[in-house]
Amino acid sequence: MKRIAIDMDEVIADAYLRIIDWYERDFSRRISLEELQGKSFIDVVLPEHRGKIREYLHTDGFFKDMAVIPDSQEVIFELSKKYEIFITTAAMEFPTSFVHKYEWMKAHFPFIPWTHIVFCGDKSIIHADYLIDDRSRHFKGFTGQGILFTSPHNVHETWTPRVNNWQEVAALLL
Amino acid sequence: MKRIAIDMDEVIADAYLRIIDWYERDFSRRISLEELQGKSFIDVVLPEHRGKIREYLHTDGFFKDMAVIPDSQEVIFELSKKYEIFITTAAMEFPTSFVHKYEWMKAHFPFIPWTHIVFCGDKSIIHADYLIDDRSRHFKGFTGQGILFTSPHNVHETWTPRVNNWQEVAALLL
Repeated sequence: MKRIAIDMDEVIADAYLRIIDWYERDFSRRISLEELQGKSFIDVVLPEHRGKIREYLHTDGFFKDMAVIPDSQEVIFELSKKYEIFITTAAMEFPTSFVHKYEWMKAHFPFIPWTHIVFCGDKSIIHADYLIDDRSRHFKGFTGQGILFTSPHNVHETWTPRVNNWQEVAALLL
Repeated sequence: MKRIAIDMDEVIADAYLRIIDWYERDFSRRISLEELQGKSFIDVVLPEHRGKIREYLHTDGFFKDMAVIPDSQEVIFELSKKYEIFITTAAMEFPTSFVHKYEWMKAHFPFIPWTHIVFCGDKSIIHADYLIDDRSRHFKGFTGQGILFTSPHNVHETWTPRVNNWQEVAALLL
């Protein structure tokens, strides 16, 4: 059975929406996804707000109750009948995220057992046939096939194969 | 550069000592390592105490401030000059352990960056040349060479190579 490793943030969990919401809460301006095309949050906010954005990621609760990326549950459930599924997230960078990410997985992907959740940093440690991720840097050193999941920050990157949403993942792998 | 994945509990962190201490605290009997040869804790305690032993592992603080297994720091530091080192621990089974394990690594193995710590369940996801672990079940599906680290519970198991301490790891890999 072939194995698919799947990233969390920006692939199954909507981390961008969380930053947009918190930024609006703190600075009364709602950043649009259009503004973010090909950029990081740091690029579109005032220089004096950048520290706050970085702080969000290390704030307890940032990773709690994030919205689920559309169709990810249904497509991954179907994929799990044909492939072995692991969720592989670079949680080590954000220790406040550990328990929230674990609880989030239990709540939204109950069909994925705890044995198949991985918190890591450098994803070259992952042994799988495919890695679906929004950060192409994780494909470096990964011995399987990287599949780039579109997120505003990576729209100008060249990578094949690229998928724009979970329906395209289904078309590629099912 | 070849890569070594190293388990935490019973390989670099002395989880047995923690159980022995807590059991003595709660039931006024100190279990010896001799009694534990070839057995699990469950086998050597009264049947009515078994639930408590299982509870320990899920208790916040169980994984905090564990003693370091002798020579592991020095030998792993030397290994890190010749190999890429990842610490790979099945923390997913015990969510209360996440932060304590992370802090423990920072305190006792500061030369191992957060990018090289992995919390997982099924270790077949690990891509490495060697896996040093006290549980041979983790070698199933692992594509590299499993190296069994002796712990009281595994003394009657047959596995080659086996190492009895960190000096033997040094002799094998340095």
